[in-house]
Amino acid sequence: MATQGQVITCKAAVAYEPNKPLVIEDVQVAPPQAGEVRIKIFFTALCHTDAYTWSGKDPEGLFPCILGHEAAGIVESVGEGVTEVQPGDHVIPCYQAECRECKFCKSGKTNLCGKVRAATGAGVMMNDRKSRFSINGKPIYHFMGTSTFSQFTVVHDVSVAKIDPQAPLDKVSLLGCGVPTGLGAVWNTAKVEPGAIVAIFGLGTVGLAVAEGAKSAGASRIIGVDIDSKRFDVAKNFGVTEFVNPKDYDKPIQQVLVDVTDGGVDYSFECIGNVSVMRAALECCHKGWGTSVIIGVAASGQEISTRPFQLVTGRVWKGTAFGGFKSRSQVPWLVDKYMKKEIKIDEYITHNLTLGEINSAFDLMHEGGCLRCVLKMHE
Amino acid sequence: MATQGQVITCKAAVAYEPNKPLVIEDVQVAPPQAGEVRIKIFFTALCHTDAYTWSGKDPEGLFPCILGHEAAGIVESVGEGVTEVQPGDHVIPCYQAECRECKFCKSGKTNLCGKVRAATGAGVMMNDRKSRFSINGKPIYHFMGTSTFSQFTVVHDVSVAKIDPQAPLDKVSLLGCGVPTGLGAVWNTAKVEPGAIVAIFGLGTVGLAVAEGAKSAGASRIIGVDIDSKRFDVAKNFGVTEFVNPKDYDKPIQQVLVDVTDGGVDYSFECIGNVSVMRAALECCHKGWGTSVIIGVAASGQEISTRPFQLVTGRVWKGTAFGGFKSRSQVPWLVDKYMKKEIKIDEYITHNLTLGEINSAFDLMHEGGCLRCVLKMHE
Ligand SMILES: NC(=O)c1ccc[n+]([C@@H]2O[C@H](COP(=O)([O-])OP(=O)(O)OC[C@H]3O[C@@H](n4cnc5c(N)ncnc54)[C@H](O)[C@@H]3O)[C@@H](O)[C@H]2O)c1
Ligand SMILES: NC(=O)c1ccc[n+]([C@@H]2O[C@H](COP(=O)([O-])OP(=O)(O)OC[C@H]3O[C@@H](n4cnc5c(N)ncnc54)[C@H](O)[C@@H]3O)[C@@H](O)[C@H]2O)c1
Ligand SMILES: [Zn+2]
Ligand SMILES: [Zn+2]
Ligand SMILES: [Zn+2]
Ligand SMILES: [Zn+2]
Repeated sequence: MATQGQVITCKAAVAYEPNKPLVIEDVQVAPPQAGEVRIKIFFTALCHTDAYTWSGKDPEGLFPCILGHEAAGIVESVGEGVTEVQPGDHVIPCYQAECRECKFCKSGKTNLCGKVRAATGAGVMMNDRKSRFSINGKPIYHFMGTSTFSQFTVVHDVSVAKIDPQAPLDKVSLLGCGVPTGLGAVWNTAKVEPGAIVAIFGLGTVGLAVAEGAKSAGASRIIGVDIDSKRFDVAKNFGVTEFVNPKDYDKPIQQVLVDVTDGGVDYSFECIGNVSVMRAALECCHKGWGTSVIIGVAASGQEISTRPFQLVTGRVWKGTAFGGFKSRSQVPWLVDKYMKKEIKIDEYITHNLTLGEINSAFDLMHEGGCLRCVLKMHE
Repeated sequence: MATQGQVITCKAAVAYEPNKPLVIEDVQVAPPQAGEVRIKIFFTALCHTDAYTWSGKDPEGLFPCILGHEAAGIVESVGEGVTEVQPGDHVIPCYQAECRECKFCKSGKTNLCGKVRAATGAGVMMNDRKSRFSINGKPIYHFMGTSTFSQFTVVHDVSVAKIDPQAPLDKVSLLGCGVPTGLGAVWNTAKVEPGAIVAIFGLGTVGLAVAEGAKSAGASRIIGVDIDSKRFDVAKNFGVTEFVNPKDYDKPIQQVLVDVTDGGVDYSFECIGNVSVMRAALECCHKGWGTSVIIGVAASGQEISTRPFQLVTGRVWKGTAFGGFKSRSQVPWLVDKYMKKEIKIDEYITHNLTLGEINSAFDLMHEGGCLRCVLKMHE
């Protein structure tokens, strides 16, 4: 294409300041440098981490920036030394990189690759510690190493998963964050086994993906806990077998769950980001073996607490990021599972809008009826 | 023997009130009822849980009682229906029962048998919810289902491990609590693998047993952390390769450990019972996989805290009771390992006294030079 090696000017939603509406701007996107990939984003979804940073509550949030991390697109061009993808490849940008070389990747114990973290945390690219985005020469920060609220973005090559070109990009965009997080929390982090009793706190996209994962793992009971009773109907379709609304009880929710399960659940998942719910999720676990997995992201500075006796008597407290999936290796496998109809995606998409409507899309996110809203990036 | 079926009057150390010196009394020990075993205790050691309950800080502590739970003896008589031990068998009373029938035992996931817990927690025997100890008709509570500070005690049959009669009872008494707790925390709970970097907070008997377990598991570095530098010399003999005294540093101890290990330890163990150290033990773990095991028993009502991000980025928080060992099945195996010189015991015994000197033995426990003090129960 004629664009290779050139600066591309395209539309992007820029967050200039915390909490101020995003502005659709003409942004200059520099060509990819060594080890970088420029991607034409076709579809992006919105996730709570975008909203969290945008809100200004994330102390590491940098402004102005281009948010977005749940998307799919096609490689436009690649920088020097990039061998694993080439222009035309269908890809999902991954906020969690996988370099296969660092201490983390080589450990075999975690998906938390460390290679580009220092740069992505600082909103820049590793090569020259600078941004590839600018408006009239003024740099705009990257976000999570993905910045998918732009028609074109530049990411590190270790952050690109090459996927089946047959896969519908509007759907598989969701495999960039929420759905794998829930599935992987069950399959990789908790390793739920057949017959297990599972409790899920929070029935948003992440919690529903946990339900789906637990169902496919053979859980015997999947108890959904949410303060919004409207979530209960849809949750059934994802495998939730019983519902508990904490507002219907006077006693602590952990006690409610211990009572209905004769001692507690085998696995619990916190999919909200509320530290008191995290405690409840641990304490509703069965003595001796119950395992609680924290998925929700709490506001900065907040702490979880419990009595150590909870752990001494056999409960285990864990957490997960991106469900423990190795992004470059396993996102393509998730795409294949979707193509074989082994995992749902369509059912999580409640709204479809365009990039220009992104502020309305964020408004929708705070309404009970919305799971994921997917934005079309090009007319 | 002529004593079978009879009340035995013998010496025991009675705790009448929190913090008041124990009193050596003539105590009446009733014959074992159905499912019970009366044991002649030959040797008992002192453990911090005895001191904790004695101190009055344990809200579930009951007085007057007979403390003690780390001991060895010989079965004097058995009640109706007891088939697995008989008079003359050498045994270790186990505060953690193993019935092989309850939900916990059958789970295959925990050693926390539930069968007699309600009774032992209430200081009585399950059969008639009464004590077998009395002084002139006035009942004295049992403690932890063991009450080994008595020349004779009565325990539930599910709480008796039958051991090799060749094993020296003064030594293997230690297999009733501290040593298995440390070894099992490494082998069963953390499952430390060869090459791992381990940090141990607190180098008392439990911490040293953790070191021994970690060494035998092939840990590459075993970092001992203690505020008492006198513990460092002896710790070398148990496998500790490096020492850190928090008092030598201005920065938080978790930061010190992260710095000397290039990112954190693979496994950490809290062997003190201090909730801020529990937090440090978690936070000195390596991102992505570090696992922290709580062994120490904190004072009632105290809580552990951390930022949930610690778990979301891959650290795991666990705890252990009796090192995860199934008591009746595995204590005999530990005795055999000792007989084959595969585990140490003698090296933990720093003092030998008699039952009559038990108050001095408790004083010793609070001195740096004492690991375990073993009491001879009969002249
Ligand atoms: N660890 C990771 O890698 C990762 C990845 C993606 C998302 N997340 C986090 O997961 C969380 C869930 O994301 P989502 O997109 O599903 O969010 P969502 O807002 O769609 O869903 C949250 C649900 O929790 C319910 N809820 C709120 N407070 C509650 C309470 N006190 N008790 C019970 N239910 C309550 C809400 O009604 C809602 O249904 C967020 O914190 C997000 O940041 C983490
Ligand atoms: N979970 C279980 O099943 C179980 C079983 C047995 C014992 N325990 C508990 O394990 C703990 C240890 O038992 P022990 O017999 O080894 O005790 P101990 O008193 O002999 O050893 C504790 C060590 O910790 C050190 N220490 C104290 N405060 C410290 C600090 N702030 N930083 C670093 N080091 C510090 C002391 O100097 C001492 O060397 C106790 O809390 C005991 O109740 C638990
Ligand atoms: Zn996300
Ligand atoms: Zn890596
Ligand atoms: Zn003990
Ligand atoms: Zn049992």
